[in-house]
Amino acid sequence: MVTMKDVAQRAGVSIATVSFLLNDTKPVTAATRARIEQAMLDLGYRRNMVARALASRRTHIIAMAYPALEHRFGMSTSEFFTSAAEAARKEDYHLVLWPVGNDGVELRELLGQGLVDGVVLMEVQLDDPRIDVLRQAATPFALIGRTTEPAGLSHVDIDFDTTVEDAVRHLYERGHRQLALISGDLDDPRFHEYGPWVRVDAAYRRVAAEYGLPVVVLPCSDTTSAGKAAVERLLAEHPETTAVLVLNEYAAIGVVSGLKRAGYDVPGDLSVLALLMVPETAAMTDPELTMMRTPGPELGQLGTEALIRQLEDADPLPPQLVPAKLLPGATVAAPRAPRPKAGAGRRGARKARS
Amino acid sequence: MVTMKDVAQRAGVSIATVSFLLNDTKPVTAATRARIEQAMLDLGYRRNMVARALASRRTHIIAMAYPALEHRFGMSTSEFFTSAAEAARKEDYHLVLWPVGNDGVELRELLGQGLVDGVVLMEVQLDDPRIDVLRQAATPFALIGRTTEPAGLSHVDIDFDTTVEDAVRHLYERGHRQLALISGDLDDPRFHEYGPWVRVDAAYRRVAAEYGLPVVVLPCSDTTSAGKAAVERLLAEHPETTAVLVLNEYAAIGVVSGLKRAGYDVPGDLSVLALLMVPETAAMTDPELTMMRTPGPELGQLGTEALIRQLEDADPLPPQLVPAKLLPGATVAAPRAPRPKAGAGRRGARKARS
Repeated sequence: MVTMKDVAQRAGVSIATVSFLLNDTKPVTAATRARIEQAMLDLGYRRNMVARALASRRTHIIAMAYPALEHRFGMSTSEFFTSAAEAARKEDYHLVLWPVGNDGVELRELLGQGLVDGVVLMEVQLDDPRIDVLRQAATPFALIGRTTEPAGLSHVDIDFDTTVEDAVRHLYERGHRQLALISGDLDDPRFHEYGPWVRVDAAYRRVAAEYGLPVVVLPCSDTTSAGKAAVERLLAEHPETTAVLVLNEYAAIGVVSGLKRAGYDVPGDLSVLALLMVPETAAMTDPELTMMRTPGPELGQLGTEALIRQLEDADPLPPQLVPAKLLPGATVAAPRAPRPKAGAGRRGARKARS
Repeated sequence: MVTMKDVAQRAGVSIATVSFLLNDTKPVTAATRARIEQAMLDLGYRRNMVARALASRRTHIIAMAYPALEHRFGMSTSEFFTSAAEAARKEDYHLVLWPVGNDGVELRELLGQGLVDGVVLMEVQLDDPRIDVLRQAATPFALIGRTTEPAGLSHVDIDFDTTVEDAVRHLYERGHRQLALISGDLDDPRFHEYGPWVRVDAAYRRVAAEYGLPVVVLPCSDTTSAGKAAVERLLAEHPETTAVLVLNEYAAIGVVSGLKRAGYDVPGDLSVLALLMVPETAAMTDPELTMMRTPGPELGQLGTEALIRQLEDADPLPPQLVPAKLLPGATVAAPRAPRPKAGAGRRGARKARS
């Protein structure tokens, strides 16, 4: 790594002088500045971003707005954030995280400072008030997520329809006809009109109906203990269930744990398929969870790209919907005692782990 | 362009009052503030905080520097971050997260912009190069963590000595004499001289020696799979072990899972005690982990307070060391077959869960 000291040595000046120039704290002569800049160039030392920002009226900082005090900053979030930060870095931008509430109040305060070039918005609500705040501030932005009417907004999101359909088909093809979805809890005000929960819920009801399956949906917040409680309720109210889809990351861990505690073998007695999960969380259960893998790395990168293209006046990135893809673990198998029914899958009796 | 006068007229207040609010020069009532903010919103007035910042040289934004691309942003980190953000909010500051590397290069670039009033430094290394960067930039800062010689630096940290001693005593009093520590992996360059790992390792070796216990320490990075591998190695190399302390959060989950997979009953055959853990992660194992609970909420708040006191020219916060406290779960019991030895605890034979 090239340090300020290296630059100082090569330029034949003191470290303090290099610091004065870099931090704009004291004037240096044009000749000295030229020597230092040449040394930085020779050594590959990164450009003085202050000077660059002042010259261009651009800070080359972008913010990811994430309501960290309302929504858990979990393992999946971490993937979105780090991939966005890496994508920004590659384009010579810094990405910072703003833990502002999803009502837009704090976002407005920070935008008013004019300290970032643009914003990547996370955890989008269908009627998201932050969109108006961003428009009023005339700040370029891109969404990871989407509102009810996202046309005209730069956005990337999970393709929930494909994700849910692929998940249901996976279970159906293994013979499952008694499915249940342990969903999000949309009555929780922190998740008011939260896009992923609303869309997964709707997609599941549609797909289940298409497959001629009974629709069993239980709301559940995203904690291990909530997952345990939800699966207990499911076992009591719908003992015929042979496979459970779980929307939320930490709830899924609780579901596996709750089933085992209730004496159920997973997947022998009941299959579990996590929707929107990352491998690191899936590895926490035993057996490891079969999951639809959240495309966080792709979406963090794409959302950042969508924003930076605006900032650089490049061709806009068209809206992207990326499905979560099946990543086999060891929590899905054929149902133990398949109930033959009209239309039951021919592979129902075969023990097909995935 | 919308002017302050327009805002004042719409809000039905004097221009001076608008100015007091915008420049923070005089307090205004909450009702007046609300009226003015609504007027600004209605008119699309962009609160000129850049001007305010330039005038006052203060942005009321502080950054938490966390090397998110090198160190996992896990559940514990999330507690530090959200408690710091809440503490900042209470003092009318915004806290943002800078995912800058722990070599100081990006930190220097961002500091050069002069956009924050101060920095809370996380994941402190014993020889942390970011300290010099902060000093050169003349930016006020506080550490959550500490260097080898933290005297004179505003810092708060975990009291690792007390934490480790309390943990070892807890196991010792239940009759355990064959302990092992599954520690951090200090050969991993991302964790070079990482304070918590170095200090826990050193404290454990000292305390074990004081208790006359054999010193068994296995390095392990912080993933579930690394935890599984480490405990397998422990069982092979030290089958006499009756209790394991695990330093890292996700490794601890792997340890419980690996033990169960190997046919061990936890805590019947082997006790597990997690050092530095949060309840939400502990709840992911079955049985739930007994832990030393990381004081993230306290330290996030104290670290922010230490910084804001500097910014407000208040009395400095003296250095604070906060121990992690025992939070009983269900993974610690007396050893199954206590080995009577000189000095073995009198409670060794009793089955005492904690």
